[in-house]
Amino acid sequence: MRITKQVSLNLDVRGLQQSATLAVNDRSRDLQSRGRQVYRLGLGQSPFPVPQSVVDALKLHAHEKDYLPARGHPDLRAAVADFHRRKDSVEARADGVLIGPGSKELMFLLQLVYYGELIVPTPCWVSYVPQAAILGRKVKLLPTRFRDKWRVTAAHLNKHLEDENDDMRPRILILNYPGNPEGCSYRADELQAIAEVARRYNIVLLSDEIYGQLHHDGGHISVARYYPEGTIISSGLSKWCGAGGWRLGTFTFPPDLDWLLDSMAAVASETYTSVSAPIQFAAIRAFQGGIQIERYLWQARRILKELGGRCARMLNDGGLRVHDPVGAFYLFLDFSPFREKLAERGITNSAELCERLLADTGVALLPGKDFSRPPEELTARMAYVDFDGAEALAAGERVPLDQQLPPDFTDLWCYNVVEATRLIVSWVGLI
Amino acid sequence: MRITKQVSLNLDVRGLQQSATLAVNDRSRDLQSRGRQVYRLGLGQSPFPVPQSVVDALKLHAHEKDYLPARGHPDLRAAVADFHRRKDSVEARADGVLIGPGSKELMFLLQLVYYGELIVPTPCWVSYVPQAAILGRKVKLLPTRFRDKWRVTAAHLNKHLEDENDDMRPRILILNYPGNPEGCSYRADELQAIAEVARRYNIVLLSDEIYGQLHHDGGHISVARYYPEGTIISSGLSKWCGAGGWRLGTFTFPPDLDWLLDSMAAVASETYTSVSAPIQFAAIRAFQGGIQIERYLWQARRILKELGGRCARMLNDGGLRVHDPVGAFYLFLDFSPFREKLAERGITNSAELCERLLADTGVALLPGKDFSRPPEELTARMAYVDFDGAEALAAGERVPLDQQLPPDFTDLWCYNVVEATRLIVSWVGLI
Repeated sequence: MRITKQVSLNLDVRGLQQSATLAVNDRSRDLQSRGRQVYRLGLGQSPFPVPQSVVDALKLHAHEKDYLPARGHPDLRAAVADFHRRKDSVEARADGVLIGPGSKELMFLLQLVYYGELIVPTPCWVSYVPQAAILGRKVKLLPTRFRDKWRVTAAHLNKHLEDENDDMRPRILILNYPGNPEGCSYRADELQAIAEVARRYNIVLLSDEIYGQLHHDGGHISVARYYPEGTIISSGLSKWCGAGGWRLGTFTFPPDLDWLLDSMAAVASETYTSVSAPIQFAAIRAFQGGIQIERYLWQARRILKELGGRCARMLNDGGLRVHDPVGAFYLFLDFSPFREKLAERGITNSAELCERLLADTGVALLPGKDFSRPPEELTARMAYVDFDGAEALAAGERVPLDQQLPPDFTDLWCYNVVEATRLIVSWVGLI
Repeated sequence: MRITKQVSLNLDVRGLQQSATLAVNDRSRDLQSRGRQVYRLGLGQSPFPVPQSVVDALKLHAHEKDYLPARGHPDLRAAVADFHRRKDSVEARADGVLIGPGSKELMFLLQLVYYGELIVPTPCWVSYVPQAAILGRKVKLLPTRFRDKWRVTAAHLNKHLEDENDDMRPRILILNYPGNPEGCSYRADELQAIAEVARRYNIVLLSDEIYGQLHHDGGHISVARYYPEGTIISSGLSKWCGAGGWRLGTFTFPPDLDWLLDSMAAVASETYTSVSAPIQFAAIRAFQGGIQIERYLWQARRILKELGGRCARMLNDGGLRVHDPVGAFYLFLDFSPFREKLAERGITNSAELCERLLADTGVALLPGKDFSRPPEELTARMAYVDFDGAEALAAGERVPLDQQLPPDFTDLWCYNVVEATRLIVSWVGLI
């Protein structure tokens, strides 16, 4: 054919690469297939299996074949609203819930229908910014600092908005907490202060709480408590329910933003139509919760807390800069204390850092640049998930829930992660 | 909030309604819930259950939780390529297959990444044109005629392209056969002639063959046989496998269009990520086929042929204009012989026609305008699917496959469709 991409590819998608997290997964798989031991701390996938009761619900509904409503099955929308009322003490209406094939797709639709500017504190999740690029939307990055635990402050946000000198500019602010890539979260007073600024500027606040149920102490607080009228809560099955590959995400809107929900649902009906019916029926079971699922969450949190805390201590002891995580399964490593020594080895940016680390040790991390940090900043995300979550949960069951996990638990059941952390520490020690 | 849709909704989505087919479904459900007998010939959903072996495969893989590659599970891509080689006698490579959450989503991504003009013969499926509108793409409608069986001719296409006087314009031509909304298809010589024109103008030909396996005589021919280098074959589980609500579609690209596949896969990785893993595993089973699935297809085709043919005869005998269908489960009814009588009742366009028919008889059709026909044209789509497909398949099993179904088969097992057809005929007789 004479027609090639030179003449007919949309300018906004030219050169677009595969999503960074998926790409590192492919690269790790490739190395493994060539016989290398790879420590897969790149892709941020829950190590835990889908709770059995939820898998059983999928089996029970495997024959469901009807197209469901574009907004989602009414019972699922009710279960999601109830979930947020119960877990997050926020107002939530079944009519305010939209079900999508992953919260990522819903974020894309939000950016598609909303004609506004995106404000994103960095480091941030890998897909917010590429989505804006695909749609030709403007993005303002708000770089945060290590000493603020990579959290945006109300003062910083306010300063940025003042400087723009455009009070009525339509904006979406994305907050993600517990956060990917750094496992940190916000205190209630911090959220309150941000909420006040958001209210002052009529900002649509997209609160990405996909890791909310994986706060290690079960202490997640939604900003929707302080800015109910302008907050969309984003959640889904991928993280707390271990079902990333199932592809089911949820947005919960306040009444004032129903016009956004309506518009997104209309676009949904012309694109993905509705989320897979059997998956939606199983998700009803998941969001309804119950004692089995609570127990699963307790175990998962306890293991992640123990493991994340231990890795952070090892890395800090080894001279890296990293915060003790409070949720999710990520650490954001700052190698800057080794900047000069790394430079002597020809490593001057995060991409080189991760490539060399992978080549030298087999440990796969994602470079800080993929989280919209400056390329020359020596940061990287570690997803402490390379262990058999089913085995670890079973082992955890033998320790009463009111007791701490024994000191050797992570050595026994999360060996690869602990070993990979040792390898990182010895690698920076040797350079 | 002060920010309302007046200031911040994307102009290309303002006023966008829910997809027409989904909307009629909601309206029918609403009438039913108020106690009315409704004949649901609006939504085009397969009446048949998902084959048991495919449902069993979903159960078997209900625990699969990993994110799959954005392009799809390698075994599924191989099974889809093999399916097209086997069924359609076309070249197809596993590497040329892209899996999406419905072929509708894949069509949207194609329009998103390809910077070109869409050419669509009408009547056409309800979502092609709204998708282009959402993305701000140009669309050229090519109206076809009843006497051409609503098929675009190579001469018509060629004339349009000549008139545009721009040989290098990037274009996508969509062909859909067996067709929604009219159940007609193309002969081999017609496809060859269209292929020649498409080749001359370097057109990307999107061949929507989602109903290919529901050609009533199993005689589907893909245009990819005549224009292999420029044809993308669109298919999926929704129609032949009865799994519309599962949401799995497939695009199969020729090597010359790999740049489009690559770009779509990159956007996929930033939007829906990948299709639900358990669904993909079940789809492998479906596309691999086998004796059970072939038998299911034989039965389904035989029933649809008998029913579609009978309805067409009844409608023609009643004075409407409609073609005998050769595939899928649609008839496109032309009420124009009753134009004057309808006008006396205040019915002057297809929307009024369908509204009045639904109110007077309980028969739900979709108006011709939803298929991009002129609003004042008195046409409507009838989806002859309002019957229990599982019962009908079981009843069909009692009739040897080499015999015709007995004359009373559709009365017994597809009663609502036959009754609805009678109601349409008597309605036009009484006006």
